[in-house]
Amino acid sequence: MRIGIAARLDIHKAIELTDDLTDFLIKNSVKVFLDPALVKKLNKYHDSAREIHDMDVDIIIAIGGDGTILRTQSFIDGKNIPIFGINMGTVGFLTEIGPEESFHALKEVLNGNYFIEERTRLEVWHNKDLAPALNEVVLMTRKPAKMLHLEIRVDDEIVEELRADGLIIATPSGSTAYAMSAGGPIVDPRVNAFIIVPICPFKLGSRPTVVSGESIISVKLLREGKKAIAVIDGQVEEEINYMEEVIFKKSDQHAYFVRLTKEFYKKVREKLIKGGIGLE
Amino acid sequence: MRIGIAARLDIHKAIELTDDLTDFLIKNSVKVFLDPALVKKLNKYHDSAREIHDMDVDIIIAIGGDGTILRTQSFIDGKNIPIFGINMGTVGFLTEIGPEESFHALKEVLNGNYFIEERTRLEVWHNKDLAPALNEVVLMTRKPAKMLHLEIRVDDEIVEELRADGLIIATPSGSTAYAMSAGGPIVDPRVNAFIIVPICPFKLGSRPTVVSGESIISVKLLREGKKAIAVIDGQVEEEINYMEEVIFKKSDQHAYFVRLTKEFYKKVREKLIKGGIGLE
Amino acid sequence: MRIGIAARLDIHKAIELTDDLTDFLIKNSVKVFLDPALVKKLNKYHDSAREIHDMDVDIIIAIGGDGTILRTQSFIDGKNIPIFGINMGTVGFLTEIGPEESFHALKEVLNGNYFIEERTRLEVWHNKDLAPALNEVVLMTRKPAKMLHLEIRVDDEIVEELRADGLIIATPSGSTAYAMSAGGPIVDPRVNAFIIVPICPFKLGSRPTVVSGESIISVKLLREGKKAIAVIDGQVEEEINYMEEVIFKKSDQHAYFVRLTKEFYKKVREKLIKGGIGLE
Amino acid sequence: MRIGIAARLDIHKAIELTDDLTDFLIKNSVKVFLDPALVKKLNKYHDSAREIHDMDVDIIIAIGGDGTILRTQSFIDGKNIPIFGINMGTVGFLTEIGPEESFHALKEVLNGNYFIEERTRLEVWHNKDLAPALNEVVLMTRKPAKMLHLEIRVDDEIVEELRADGLIIATPSGSTAYAMSAGGPIVDPRVNAFIIVPICPFKLGSRPTVVSGESIISVKLLREGKKAIAVIDGQVEEEINYMEEVIFKKSDQHAYFVRLTKEFYKKVREKLIKGGIGLE
Repeated sequence: MRIGIAARLDIHKAIELTDDLTDFLIKNSVKVFLDPALVKKLNKYHDSAREIHDMDVDIIIAIGGDGTILRTQSFIDGKNIPIFGINMGTVGFLTEIGPEESFHALKEVLNGNYFIEERTRLEVWHNKDLAPALNEVVLMTRKPAKMLHLEIRVDDEIVEELRADGLIIATPSGSTAYAMSAGGPIVDPRVNAFIIVPICPFKLGSRPTVVSGESIISVKLLREGKKAIAVIDGQVEEEINYMEEVIFKKSDQHAYFVRLTKEFYKKVREKLIKGGIGLE
Repeated sequence: MRIGIAARLDIHKAIELTDDLTDFLIKNSVKVFLDPALVKKLNKYHDSAREIHDMDVDIIIAIGGDGTILRTQSFIDGKNIPIFGINMGTVGFLTEIGPEESFHALKEVLNGNYFIEERTRLEVWHNKDLAPALNEVVLMTRKPAKMLHLEIRVDDEIVEELRADGLIIATPSGSTAYAMSAGGPIVDPRVNAFIIVPICPFKLGSRPTVVSGESIISVKLLREGKKAIAVIDGQVEEEINYMEEVIFKKSDQHAYFVRLTKEFYKKVREKLIKGGIGLE
Repeated sequence: MRIGIAARLDIHKAIELTDDLTDFLIKNSVKVFLDPALVKKLNKYHDSAREIHDMDVDIIIAIGGDGTILRTQSFIDGKNIPIFGINMGTVGFLTEIGPEESFHALKEVLNGNYFIEERTRLEVWHNKDLAPALNEVVLMTRKPAKMLHLEIRVDDEIVEELRADGLIIATPSGSTAYAMSAGGPIVDPRVNAFIIVPICPFKLGSRPTVVSGESIISVKLLREGKKAIAVIDGQVEEEINYMEEVIFKKSDQHAYFVRLTKEFYKKVREKLIKGGIGLE
Repeated sequence: MRIGIAARLDIHKAIELTDDLTDFLIKNSVKVFLDPALVKKLNKYHDSAREIHDMDVDIIIAIGGDGTILRTQSFIDGKNIPIFGINMGTVGFLTEIGPEESFHALKEVLNGNYFIEERTRLEVWHNKDLAPALNEVVLMTRKPAKMLHLEIRVDDEIVEELRADGLIIATPSGSTAYAMSAGGPIVDPRVNAFIIVPICPFKLGSRPTVVSGESIISVKLLREGKKAIAVIDGQVEEEINYMEEVIFKKSDQHAYFVRLTKEFYKKVREKLIKGGIGLE
C-alpha cells in the first residue's frame, strides 16, 4: 500500500503525529510519501518527500481540520485519491477521527476494513472553469458592509433578484460548514442537491433554497460600479465584475474519503452539542 | 374528455365559478361530473352529481385553495387522476391559476396544451398504513404548550433526541407550506428529499434537516404519560402513544397536477412578496 | 430567620435534599416551614407543615427547576417574599444554584451575604385581572395545527394583524424560556421592556418585537368560530373567545429572588453550551 | 423660520424637488439655506449657499433616504437641529414622508403642527471618541469570508466569546436597518436599550441580545494577526487591531427628527410588506 501524508504546519501536535504515524506505517510495510514542508519541519524521512500534487498513492492522510482537507483536495484534483482526515482538536465534518484513535483506525484501514465515500463537488464557471468546490462558493463584496445586488437563476428560471451582503452556493458537504452559520439547513450528503443561502438579505422573507443536483445555477452581478469576489472553499478568490455571471453545476469530479463508519448524524450531534459549525 | 369538479362550499364565488365553468365545459362537449354537495348548492346539473371518490375522469378541477386540493386528493388516492387547481383569492403553491384566467387556461387544457407534473407523497405508517401525505405530517402534543420528547432516526441511525413543541416531516411540496412557517428551507420539487423541521425546539442549535427521498424516517415518542397526535396534510388526525413509532418513507402513490407552465420560483416570489406561506 | 421550603414531589432527590436542608436549617436556629405535601412524603417535621400561601417567612426555598419556581411564585402573589431556587439537574434561569452547592450557599444567605433581585411581571387582563406572569403568556388555539388570527396593538397603535400558530408575550425573565425556542432574542432583565414573539407565523417577514415596559399591549382574537387559550407561565389556562381582547402591561407586583452573584450572562452561556432553553 | 436643505446629488428627482421646495419656502417667507453642492447643481439660489455644518437653522430638510439622513446628521453633530426627512422612492425608517406629500407636510410644519422626536445615539470609543452612531456600528474583518474572534462584555461581565463574520451594535433606530437583515428583533424606539447581533456566528446557539441603554458594552478583538474595521452608520470606517477594545455606551448627543405623526409600527408594516429593511 502507498500512503501520502499532508498536515497543518502551524500546529506542533500535527507535526508530531505525522512523525509517529509515518514511523507506524513504515513498520507496517507501507510506502509513505510526505509533503516536503513536513519533511523539512521534521528533518527526517528525506527520501519520502513528494509534492502533494505528485503523490501517486492509494490514500492521502490529511492531519489538521476540515480546512486542511479542503487544501489537500485542491492539490489532487482529478486524481480520485481518497483522503483520510485526522482532526486535531475540533470535530470536523470532513475529517474522520481524532488523533488518539488514529493508530487503531489506520490498522483497520491497512486491514481493508474501510469503505470509500464519494462526495459531490460543485463545478464553478466564470469566464472559464475554476477549481470545483467541495463545500461552497461564497459571493461577497470586495468592500465590507456593502450590499450585492444579484440575479439568481435555476435552469434559466429567475429565482430571485437578491440584495444581500453575500450569497452561498453549497454542496451537501458544505451544508454543515459556512452555509449553516448563515442560516442554511443540514443536508444529508446522500441528497442530490445544492443549497442557495443568502447572507444578511435585505428582504426579510428571503429563505435558503435547496435545488436539484441536476440543476444549473447562475448568478449575475447587477449593480454597476461594484465588484464582487467568489471565494471557493475558503481557498481561492476570483473577482467578478458588473453584469458578469458565475455558473454552478454538479462537477464530473468528486471527492473521496476513507470512512470507517457510515454515521453522519453522530457528527452533526457532536457539532451541535459543541455548538460550532464545520470549518475551524 | 371527462372532467370532475370539486370546490370549497363556503366561498360563494367558488360556487359561482363552478357554475360558469360547468356551463363552459358542457358547451365544449366535455362530460362533466360534480361533487353532489355542489349540485345541491347550485340546484342544477343534477345528472352530473358524482361522489369525488367515484369520479372516473381524466382531470379533476379543484376550486378553492391548497386546502381544497389536499382534501380532493384524499378522495382519489390510488387513482392517479391529475388535479387542476384554481385558487380563489390567495396564491397557492398547489393551485395553478386564479379565477380570472381559468377559462383561458381551461381552453388550453382542452386543446391539450398542458403537461402533468408528478409530485412525491409521503407514506405514513403507525401500526398500519395511514393516508399518504402530499404536504406534510405534523406531530404535536394533544395539550397545547407542552413539549414532545422524540427520538428521530434516519435509516436506523439516530439523528436527534428532540424536545420541541412539535415536529414536521414534509415533502418538497410541503416545504412552502407549514414547514416554512416553522423555519424550514424552500425545497425545489425536483429534489428527491424529505424535510424534518422541529417546531420551537428546546435546544437552540436544532436545525431543519433535508434527508434523502430514499431514506426511511422513524419517530418514536419517548415521554411517558404524554400522547401526541399526527396531523396529515391538515386533514387527518391519528393519536400516538408512549414508545410508539411513526415511520415515513416515499409513497408508491404520487399526486398529479395539470400544469400550463414549468415555473416554480415565480410562485415562490409571489408568495414572498405577498409575505405569506402556502396553506390558506 | 424564617424560611419556607417547596419542592418538586416527583423527584426523589429533591425530597432527600429537602430533608437534609431542613435538618441543616433547624440546626442553624432557623424557623422552617414545609409544604404539607413534603411533610407527608418525608413523614417528618410534622409541626413544620404550612401551606405555601400561608407561609409568613423571610425566604422561600424552591427545590426543582424553573417550573417549581413559577408554581411557588403563583402561591405567594402579592407577598413580596424572595425565592431562593435550587435546581435539580438542569441549569435554570430562575434557580440560583445546584444541589451540591446548596449548603454552602445557604450558609452565605444565613450570614446575610446575598441580595434581592427584583424581576418585572406582566399584568394580564381578560374580562378581569388574571394571575400576573413572571415569564410569559402564550396564546394558542385549542385545536392543534390550526392558525390564530390576531390583531396586536401597542399603545393603541396597530402593530400587526398576525396569522400564526400562536403568540408569546414575554418579560425579560421569559426571554430565555419559551420565547427563545420560538426565535426571540435574549433580553437582559435590566431592560424595561416586553417581547412579542409569533409562533410559526404565516407571514415570512414577521419578526420578534421588543416594546417598552411602559406600553400597553392588547391582542384581539379576529377569527370567528375559533377559540384560543392563554397559558400563563405554563401554569394557568384561560379561554379566549372571538373578538375578545387580552391586555398586557407591567404589573405592580414583582417577583423577588435571592441572589449570591449578579452574573446573568454566565447562565446564558451555560444554557447555550448545554444547548437548551429555560423551562425543563 | 430658518430652514436648511440637503439632498442626494445623484438622484435627479431629488434635485428637482429641492428646487420646488426652495421656491415654496421662500414664497412662504422662510429663510432658506442650501448645501453649496445643490446650489451648483441647480445654478440658482446662489445667495443661499451654506455648508451643512455651518447652517444655523431651525430645521434641516434631508431629501433622499435613510442614508442621506445619516450623512446629514454627521455634519450637524452637537447642534441639536431636527431633521425632516423626505424619502425618494423607498420607504425609510428615518425619513418622514414621500415626495408627493412633502408640500402638504411642510405647510403643516410651517404652521407649527409637528413635534420633535428624540432618538438615542451610541457613543463609540476606540482610543478616542469617534462619531456617535444613530443606527449601528458594524465590526467586521478587513478580508472577506474570514471570521472575527471577539470577546463581548456588558458592564464588565463577559457575555460571550464569539467567532463570527461580524458583530452589530445597534440602537433601537438601527434595529430596523442592518441589524434586522442579520436576524435581529424589531426594537421600539421608546425602549432604552441597545442590540447586539452576531453576523453568521460559528456557534449555532448564538442569539441577538438586547441590553440596557444604561450598560457599557465593550468588544475586544482576540485573534492575533487579524485586523477588523468598525463601520459607523455605513459612513465612517475605523481600523481595529489585535487586543484593542471598542467601547459603546449611550451618547449625550441625540438625533432629532421632525414628525407629523407618532406612528412607528405603520412604517414597520410598510417595510415588511415591501419586504425590505431600512437602508436603501
